[in-house]
Amino acid sequence: MRPIFYPESIAVIGVSLSPDNLGLGIIYNLTEFGFRGVIHEVGPKGGVISGRRIYKSVLDIPDVVDLAVILTPARTVADILEECGQKGILWAVIESAGFREYGEEGKKLEERVVRVAEKWGMRFVGPNCIGVINKENGLCTPFTPLNPNVRLGDISIISQSGGVGMSVLNLMGNEGLGLNKFVSAGNMLNIQTEEFLEYFIEDPPTRYIYIHLEGIRNGRKLMEVARKSSKPILASKANIGKFGKSIASSHTASLSSDDRVVDAAFRQCGIIRVNDATTLGNDLKVLHLPPMRGRNLAIISRSGGHAVIAADACEYVGFNLAQFPKAFIEEIEKHFRASVIKLTNPLDLGDLFDLDFFLRIIERTLAEEGVDGIVFLHTIIPMIEGPKSRELLARIRELSKEYQKPVAVYVSTEDQEVAWLKRNLNYPIFTQVVETVRALDLNYRYYAGIEQTREPRKIESPHKNRETARSFLKKAQNEKRNLFLHEAAEVLKAYGLPMIQGLPVADEGEAVKAARQLGFPVAMKIISKEISHKSDIGGVQLNLRTEAGVADAYRDMLKRIRQAYPEAKIEGVLIQSMATGGRELIIGGRQDDQFGPVILVGLGGIFVEVFGEVSLRVAPITPREAVEMINELRGIAMFKGARGTKPSDLEAVAEVLLKLSQLLCDLPEIREIDINPLRVFLEKEGCLGLDVRLILDKS
Amino acid sequence: MRPIFYPESIAVIGVSLSPDNLGLGIIYNLTEFGFRGVIHEVGPKGGVISGRRIYKSVLDIPDVVDLAVILTPARTVADILEECGQKGILWAVIESAGFREYGEEGKKLEERVVRVAEKWGMRFVGPNCIGVINKENGLCTPFTPLNPNVRLGDISIISQSGGVGMSVLNLMGNEGLGLNKFVSAGNMLNIQTEEFLEYFIEDPPTRYIYIHLEGIRNGRKLMEVARKSSKPILASKANIGKFGKSIASSHTASLSSDDRVVDAAFRQCGIIRVNDATTLGNDLKVLHLPPMRGRNLAIISRSGGHAVIAADACEYVGFNLAQFPKAFIEEIEKHFRASVIKLTNPLDLGDLFDLDFFLRIIERTLAEEGVDGIVFLHTIIPMIEGPKSRELLARIRELSKEYQKPVAVYVSTEDQEVAWLKRNLNYPIFTQVVETVRALDLNYRYYAGIEQTREPRKIESPHKNRETARSFLKKAQNEKRNLFLHEAAEVLKAYGLPMIQGLPVADEGEAVKAARQLGFPVAMKIISKEISHKSDIGGVQLNLRTEAGVADAYRDMLKRIRQAYPEAKIEGVLIQSMATGGRELIIGGRQDDQFGPVILVGLGGIFVEVFGEVSLRVAPITPREAVEMINELRGIAMFKGARGTKPSDLEAVAEVLLKLSQLLCDLPEIREIDINPLRVFLEKEGCLGLDVRLILDKS
Repeated sequence: MRPIFYPESIAVIGVSLSPDNLGLGIIYNLTEFGFRGVIHEVGPKGGVISGRRIYKSVLDIPDVVDLAVILTPARTVADILEECGQKGILWAVIESAGFREYGEEGKKLEERVVRVAEKWGMRFVGPNCIGVINKENGLCTPFTPLNPNVRLGDISIISQSGGVGMSVLNLMGNEGLGLNKFVSAGNMLNIQTEEFLEYFIEDPPTRYIYIHLEGIRNGRKLMEVARKSSKPILASKANIGKFGKSIASSHTASLSSDDRVVDAAFRQCGIIRVNDATTLGNDLKVLHLPPMRGRNLAIISRSGGHAVIAADACEYVGFNLAQFPKAFIEEIEKHFRASVIKLTNPLDLGDLFDLDFFLRIIERTLAEEGVDGIVFLHTIIPMIEGPKSRELLARIRELSKEYQKPVAVYVSTEDQEVAWLKRNLNYPIFTQVVETVRALDLNYRYYAGIEQTREPRKIESPHKNRETARSFLKKAQNEKRNLFLHEAAEVLKAYGLPMIQGLPVADEGEAVKAARQLGFPVAMKIISKEISHKSDIGGVQLNLRTEAGVADAYRDMLKRIRQAYPEAKIEGVLIQSMATGGRELIIGGRQDDQFGPVILVGLGGIFVEVFGEVSLRVAPITPREAVEMINELRGIAMFKGARGTKPSDLEAVAEVLLKLSQLLCDLPEIREIDINPLRVFLEKEGCLGLDVRLILDKS
Repeated sequence: MRPIFYPESIAVIGVSLSPDNLGLGIIYNLTEFGFRGVIHEVGPKGGVISGRRIYKSVLDIPDVVDLAVILTPARTVADILEECGQKGILWAVIESAGFREYGEEGKKLEERVVRVAEKWGMRFVGPNCIGVINKENGLCTPFTPLNPNVRLGDISIISQSGGVGMSVLNLMGNEGLGLNKFVSAGNMLNIQTEEFLEYFIEDPPTRYIYIHLEGIRNGRKLMEVARKSSKPILASKANIGKFGKSIASSHTASLSSDDRVVDAAFRQCGIIRVNDATTLGNDLKVLHLPPMRGRNLAIISRSGGHAVIAADACEYVGFNLAQFPKAFIEEIEKHFRASVIKLTNPLDLGDLFDLDFFLRIIERTLAEEGVDGIVFLHTIIPMIEGPKSRELLARIRELSKEYQKPVAVYVSTEDQEVAWLKRNLNYPIFTQVVETVRALDLNYRYYAGIEQTREPRKIESPHKNRETARSFLKKAQNEKRNLFLHEAAEVLKAYGLPMIQGLPVADEGEAVKAARQLGFPVAMKIISKEISHKSDIGGVQLNLRTEAGVADAYRDMLKRIRQAYPEAKIEGVLIQSMATGGRELIIGGRQDDQFGPVILVGLGGIFVEVFGEVSLRVAPITPREAVEMINELRGIAMFKGARGTKPSDLEAVAEVLLKLSQLLCDLPEIREIDINPLRVFLEKEGCLGLDVRLILDKS
């Protein structure tokens, strides 16, 4: 993909001398950003621009061209691409809009473009985008004239939307964050997000990656690529609801996805999700600081009021306020002009105006073993201490590096001074107290969690009993129905999932015999593919305690159902053991369109319905993730011995999640599965699925 | 309080010619801000400054002085104040620190200051503050040299912390928000937040008020004052946890308060709570726009990507996307240069670059009856459309005023242009898409909710049965114990609260008689002030169905308890009716140190313990607030017929809350009360308290 970012010569196609020609904007930007390669202008009307000929076709260019940048009406793009192919150009940026995002006609144009590219083995960015910026060589293909005020740095950006990408560039300029490369991916007809991501992960000058997504084509691929990254990846994902969906499809032709799955997936592959511009800016800043390796923070402040706000924020995110040793406090105490401040953490510097001494305090604090990071809340009066303060901050930058601990600097001062610091200091400057602390917490969590995303995902591939399970699925598929409860239970058992004992029977005599075999009491459930909500129509009987009871219940049930559903084909009934005691969870899974198999766990019964408590992961999961899923449930305290009850066997639940994860990965023909309820017994006593619903993929 | 903000002459006490004298900073600021009154410098060493004599004492000033600004060591302040009194100065700003916030010694100094002020009838701001700024007359008493770059405007600020106040001024300068007056209240030894608030509510040029609090002295007074305001009041409250508490007490000597009570109180009196600087800035901006009167929003965007983000945000806050009529869409359609955009809401202006036409679209949209407000997502390319865009925004400002509908403008462009717009346009400019939508939602909710804070609070004063209730409280107080269950039940009944029937009895015969009278089955509960957790030691027996059963249970219970607690004085037992059916809530109340009586409701049993679901209000509450409290509970769906069950009598619960509210207001000697459980029956069938715990104030 190097020619897209480092072309030695490019052809800008769609240039004319008309004053409202958008191609001229591209030429302007290439010049302003100081592009180091050769530029060829192409446009059907020809002409001369800045002493260079505008060629009527790429075929007329008497030179090798590495990259074509196309900004012509949608209907002309395929033909132009054909000419590029003939010219031997293998890489293109198609900025033109009017394709799939505009409906059927556009989709046809798009298909032609794809065919031409395939024919010549060309790869292209877009269409419907503003293309590429590379601060390393001055490449800049957007068609709106830009000010090259973002400095060269180590952050590279992939944005599906050009407009959002531009506002991120504005943010970076404003915050003094440095750009390396930028690509607006548009409709991603040919080159996908994941490919750009892979390129940036390998690209030496890129050290941080930000992605703005409106749709995710191949979630599993995205996760796989992200897991390989040793560089922090931040991503925002818009188009999360029904409002966004409609506008997104006409914007970058993106499909929406289940946002909870996106959340889980990002977390599982170490992508930091950001939801707004302020957070993005602060996260990028804080990741440029050394890792915070523990939870012990020191707050050093020139304002007591800011210290209080920071202390509140620490408590909220769960940082500890590191204890300062007595010798340290005494040392500082000697230097105060007046005795107005209590020396503790937060350390309120009060009316101490000696900036050199601040530096000594900060260095002394960094040297403390019990301190993992510092928030320095700095109030500057530029008129009397501007230059001194700039020096202080430059020294803090060095100290943070030297001690390899983060010093997050919040600054309260006039905005001219803030702007100067952001542009010139080459060190993150925060301007909101709460955000400074929140960002440091992100720094900690990122570095603490990133290793976990690479933990091996335990999975036999395939499971030794896959074919046993599949035989039940095939039978149902052949009969064009979903699985009956007893069949679904067999599938689960094949994967080692604990299911209550059950025997399908076809008549009264068999029912009694089965009950005797299982031991009383038993439950009885109707088996019929036409009847899905069994209990609503009397298709479930619980607590049958005698043989006579089973016989009666059988006759009653069949009579009742035949009356209610005269057309229904009844296969028989299922006789099940009864489980007593325990608490209920729901365990389930499904195939997600973008991310493949996902599994979830929720509190059972009323909890899931009223509180909607579920936690979710993309399969396969690791043993650690299984435990994490369970612990995430807000009501899980009930299972851990809250109110003096005995704790439940959550280890067995984690085991179930791992097995279900394997099952869903092995058997993609299962569209949806719910074990509801999973009865969880006391510690070491295991758990047992009592009912299961299994929906097959119709395709 | 006018002389504090509009003195015609001031004395700055604590000025010397030493270069590090802080008083000089005050003189500098008064000069820079163009103070229009007379300035007198005072300092024991005397001297001459800028041609004016430094008086050795205020008594030497040959002129009337309206306001003294004192910045001298804490130990000197009382004597200086005495001289001010002699001089006839009735108002002072004491900036000196070193009082209560520094411990016992400081507290004594403070007491002397208070006595002197009382003696002369003086009122003062501080101590431990940076005083007052008034942009109307150039008064500026902080001692750090400031740049007067915040423009004159209509926002006035009360900040307990000087440092936080300064950072808000920086924010306002940066965001182009105009300041009217500023006061840093410090330790609030004499003039309290509520008095400043009252002054600003009456102050004509002030139209918006922001308060930063670290402690709340008199929460009820604050609420009372705030309710009278026709101006929006925004407030942040720091010092919410154990970390903040310690630093806050040494900063502005503030006590912490229950943050959930603060939340409820602010809401009940229409104060908008803000938790960070970004939100504060955006809230202040959005309240400068006309009220959004409904939930129908139009999004007009120059970038599809921003439109998607805004649409997501609308869904999140619960705005509707207004439907555009067909004629309107067709009219716009004619004007597009190329056919690349689908016309819907969000309206993506795509490659339309005609700013005049934008204006017509916006005006046309404002004219639509079904549109209550607009979010305009504006991307500016300053180089080619800067001046045009400034004109457009100025016209939008007029249109918003003309149609009295908010047009919230988000701008994505280079920061120089953003800064110019914020400083010169005199119209709010937002720079984060999500925040723009969130802020508009705040605008809507503020104007929709503010009337409700003035609803009459139904309360008989006092309740006709107050003395009946009080007789039980007095009896217990005299006996130095809390109330027994049956007494507490009588107190509740006196206020019309439904409690289950119960009869206290002293022997076995009475127990049987009482059971017969109440009807079987009954419950039996031990009565003894030494035994608080009755059920733990077998002091509760439920479901007694026969006379013999009651007699047996009585004997057993007494025997058991006498064995377990040989020392306990047993008053007898309580025979109670049994209630069947219904669902459980917990209802309670207590006296809050800052806000007086508060009441709360929570889901019963495991829900409150595991999910911690309670909602809370300061009493007295309105009928609307009672309903709101109940509806706030996340699990309340269970009581409203979720899962096909029958709905419970929540009207009766609201009634209970109102009665409890009256009770707590009438009887402040009740420190804490819990009705647990309150059994709630089906609709129209009422509810019933089964048990109650009532703790009296020890003082």
